[in-house]
Parts: sequence; structure tokens; C-alpha cells
Amino acid sequence: MALHELHLIEYIAKQAASTCDSSVIMGIGDDCAVLQLNQDKELLVTTDTLIEAIHFDLAYFDSFSLGRKAAAVNLSDIAAMGGTPRWAFLNLAVRPGLSKDFLSTFLTGLFAELRPLGVQLVGGDTVSSLKELSITLTLLGEANRHCHLTRREARPGDLIYCSGTLGDAACGLYWLQAQKMQKKRLNMPQNLHFAAKKAIKRHLTPIPRLALGKALAEDRLANACIDSSDGLATDLAHICSQSGVMAQLDAKAIPISRASRLLCRALRLSPLKTALTGGEDFELIWTTPPQKEGQMRRTAAAILGHTPYKIGRILQGKGVWIAGKDISYHGFEHIF
Amino acid sequence: MALHELHLIEYIAKQAASTCDSSVIMGIGDDCAVLQLNQDKELLVTTDTLIEAIHFDLAYFDSFSLGRKAAAVNLSDIAAMGGTPRWAFLNLAVRPGLSKDFLSTFLTGLFAELRPLGVQLVGGDTVSSLKELSITLTLLGEANRHCHLTRREARPGDLIYCSGTLGDAACGLYWLQAQKMQKKRLNMPQNLHFAAKKAIKRHLTPIPRLALGKALAEDRLANACIDSSDGLATDLAHICSQSGVMAQLDAKAIPISRASRLLCRALRLSPLKTALTGGEDFELIWTTPPQKEGQMRRTAAAILGHTPYKIGRILQGKGVWIAGKDISYHGFEHIF
Repeated sequence: MALHELHLIEYIAKQAASTCDSSVIMGIGDDCAVLQLNQDKELLVTTDTLIEAIHFDLAYFDSFSLGRKAAAVNLSDIAAMGGTPRWAFLNLAVRPGLSKDFLSTFLTGLFAELRPLGVQLVGGDTVSSLKELSITLTLLGEANRHCHLTRREARPGDLIYCSGTLGDAACGLYWLQAQKMQKKRLNMPQNLHFAAKKAIKRHLTPIPRLALGKALAEDRLANACIDSSDGLATDLAHICSQSGVMAQLDAKAIPISRASRLLCRALRLSPLKTALTGGEDFELIWTTPPQKEGQMRRTAAAILGHTPYKIGRILQGKGVWIAGKDISYHGFEHIF
Repeated sequence: MALHELHLIEYIAKQAASTCDSSVIMGIGDDCAVLQLNQDKELLVTTDTLIEAIHFDLAYFDSFSLGRKAAAVNLSDIAAMGGTPRWAFLNLAVRPGLSKDFLSTFLTGLFAELRPLGVQLVGGDTVSSLKELSITLTLLGEANRHCHLTRREARPGDLIYCSGTLGDAACGLYWLQAQKMQKKRLNMPQNLHFAAKKAIKRHLTPIPRLALGKALAEDRLANACIDSSDGLATDLAHICSQSGVMAQLDAKAIPISRASRLLCRALRLSPLKTALTGGEDFELIWTTPPQKEGQMRRTAAAILGHTPYKIGRILQGKGVWIAGKDISYHGFEHIF
């Protein structure tokens, strides 16, 4: 019997919920678990598993970038909750055929991401596997008490914002896959070459938006927040279903980079659909009440170096709507 | 190039150590990481990955037992540090061909172990894999400040104790493997049948010694402690190298069950060698200064229901010695 990932998570979450006491401020169902440590601090915990041939392809993923990405996808979860990452745990299942150089460069990439943030690698597990390299990174972070962002608090009237262009990482992935199928670098004009380089970088080495998430949380500038890991249509659907609201997106306002438009034309894809369903951009998507919009925009712009993108509005209702269609949960999903 | 697991861990630990500040009381190199949370409490964190065909074989591992074992091996790490487990995170990489029943029974087994201890499942990650089921469980636990056990504090003169018979889990594993090779249940007399059943149970559903670990830590009855996961020769070698001492084992005192002796005879194995090198018994091994021996024995006996086993003595020097031989690190080791 085939099992859908979302159903399995729901099943686990339902079983798990009955085990939880008041120490669990947030259990399964957000970017991080939130545990109450003491009067002042909350502990944020997130963990992500990357499996060879599912989440990365060593045909085009160099080990340095893989190390960075393993860190970045977890850091992005801490960012989406507005926390500060502190400690990391690395579980590696190493298959035959991976060299010492591969593994040491992987670690160099991991530390390149963790060290500047002061995140300390303090544990993990190293085992053998037969067929697949598997990487699990677990991050522990901190937030001040009652000062984390969730997916649950979006309110009708809120404005929906995101921190960067969407669909770039997916374009980068599709381009790499197309190159691999043709078993060579695609011949292309110079402008397409630069576009591909940019998009591939977005796929290989995403940038977690930690400073932004922290500012949104600590200055109370957002009601709800998530990182764009599974595509806007799915990520925003999580906010809507958990907050009991509807999202109305403005098709013309979805930020799409010039690189993404160029690549989508070459790949015969819709740039808008790619922006809505393509995953792994690891931008933040959040909702802000109108009275805080000005302050939020100034704060975000100072951190990002550009104004954040207003992409829609939260209303009463349910679903994620664009141009009259409900696109909730359209995107990358893993089918067992 | 082949990479030895211990070397990879050492390499990671060396890289990681330079990232650590004073919040890290214990980083890589013990059963758990120990993080300082506040004036009163320490956070213990442990994580273990189990890979199909490396750590378990679905030919003889039912999914309920697999769920229990995934929990037990982590709980045993918390036990070895003398902590109290609180929160769990489950990362599952599910390959094609595993049924919904398999996964739900796995979860039932996991909860059967966690729920009675009040351990709450609060997060994780569920992904697809192509070829191997992989299970990573991460446990967070607590200990009172300065009240955890390590591998570093064994002192010359300490007595070495363990909580139960050793080698049983390995006998159970070897028996299951022999059965699988013969593709049927082995024909055997009744006493061997019962012995096999007992040993297989030790392999499939080990019992973490949480109450004992906690008592040894809180009553300060042990200087150093570890759980027997990789075999006595390896586990004790960790204590010796990290404490800068030598262990002198008494061959006649190594506790070997009647079941293990019977099975070893049938399998043409040395019961003593199996007890020294066989892994996954998940008994505690600890060292106690002589002046605390009486109190420790009474406390341990009250918890275990039997007197703990005195198996040797800590001396100045290095290595793990038995009958004139250094057996340090002989045991199960994973070669990449």
C-alpha cells in the first residue's frame, strides 16, 4: 500500500499529541518544536533528513555545498520560528564508495555555515549504510519566552510578505537535471549561462534568513511565519490550515527573478507555476497586521538589503487562492 | 578509500571541538551531549541511527520490536549518563514496499517504550528513501546540575561493575542469522529452544537501565559509566582512554547466562569471547570507588532485583586487560 508523506506525518502527530504535557509549547506541526525550559527561555528543536537520490544527487552536488545545505535547511527552520541556533547534532549514514576527501569537504561545508553563527556541533551518530548516503542534522536553538513565531497566528486582514524571489531554487534544480540527462553542459547564450549559475546557487546553497526571522519575532512584526521549503502553495497552506484562515495571493505580485524567467522560458515552464510550487527557496513567508506594515518593511529592508515583497492578504475562509483557484498543497510532495 | 567509523568520529570531534563554548559541558565523545541550560539543570541529548540491513534485518525483526528498539537504544544512552528522558524526535526515511501496517506497528512499539516513561514525541522528519529504511531517534533529557555520569572520571582503585549478563544479545543475533541462512527454524531440543527465545528477546527488545543510571548519578555511587552497546572490550576501552586509566577484568567474573552458554556451544562460539565482544546488551558498565561499594550494591540490587556483577578493577595504565591480553576495542565495529 502506498503511503502519502502528509498522511504519515498526520498519523504520527495524532499519536504523539496524546503524550504531550505542558512543557511542550509546540509539538509536531511547525518548523520547530518549542519546549519550555524555564521562566525566560524556550528551546527550539528542528531536524531534517536528506537522502541521496531523493534530496540531492551527487552527480551535480559537490560535497562542500551538500554540507552547507544540510546546515542551511535546518537553520531556515530556526529562522522561521524567530530563534537563535545554538547546538547541532549530525547523524551520517555513509555508504561504500565515498572517499575521505568527500566526507571532510562535506564537514568543511557544514562548518562554513555553522561557525559564523556560533552554532556548536556537539553530538550525532556515524554509521554505515549499504546503498544510500543519508544525512540528518538536528539543531537546538533558543528564543525568549513567548517570543517565537508559529504557523497558527495569521489573522484576517494580515498582509502576506516574503523575503525574496520564489522559484529560483526549483529552476536551478530543473536545469541541473536537464544537464544531467543530456550528459553535458547545455550550450546556451551568455545571459542564460549567468541565469543558470544564479539559480543553481539558490538550489545548492540557500541562505537561511536568521536575522530577519529574529527581528520579526522579537519586534513582534509578524503574526505567522514559515520558510518556503515545499513551495509557496504548500507552505502557505500550512499557515492557512493551522490558523483557520484563507490566503488571497496577487498573481502579479509574486516575486520572480529575471534569471527564473529566462530559465523557465528555455525549459518551457510557467515562471508563475514554478514560483508557486517549486520548493527549497528557503525564503521566509510571513503575515503582518496592516498597522505594523511600515515598521516591518523598514526593519526587513534594513536586514535584507531590499524591500520585502507583499504577495497577498489573509482573509476569512480557507485555502490558498490565486486567480480564482485554490492551489493549497500543490507542490513537491514525497510519495512513498 | 575505506574509512573506519572511529576515525571519522575522531575527525568530526576534532573539527567540532573548536566550535564549542562554555555552554557545552560535554560534546562529542560520550553517550550524550551535555548542555548547560541554567543554574539548576543540564540538558542531555543523544541520537542514534538504525539502518536496514546494517542494524536490523526485517527478515526477523518485527516492526513492533523495531519501534521498541529504536527507543531503547537511545534511552540507554540517557541511562548511561544518569539522566531523565523527556522529549523525542523521530526521523524516518521510508523506502517503497513498507505497508501502512508496518509503520503503524512500528510507532506502537516506539510509544510502548516511550509512554510509560513520560517521554513525549514532539518532532522529527518523514521522508522517502529509495532503498533503505532508516530510523533516527533523538532524545532530549534532563539531569540536575553537575549530576551526570561520564566516561572520563574512572579512577585507579575503582571497582568495575555491570548490571546484567553480557553476550546474550549477540547470541540472539547469531541465532537469528543462522536460522535465516537455513531458511527455517532450527530443530533443537527444548532447553535450546528456551535459550534461543531468551537471547533473541535480548537482541530485539533490550531494556534500558534508566532507574539504575539515575540512582548511580544522583547518589554519586559511580565515577564513570557507559552502556554496553558495542561490546565490553570496546565500551570499557572508551572509559579507559577517556579517563586515562587501565581496566583489569577477571575472566571468571564476567557474567554469562546459562542461555548464552548453551547457544554458544551449539554455535561453536566461545561464551567468554561473545560476552567480551558481542554488542547491544545495553547493560550499564560503571566504576565505583571501594568505599562506596556497599551502598552501591544495595542500591543497585534494590533496583535490578539482583546483585550487580563485579567484573574487574581500574588501575593505573592503559588498555582493557583480561588474562594477560589487551582487548581494547575488539568488538563490533562498522567499516565503511
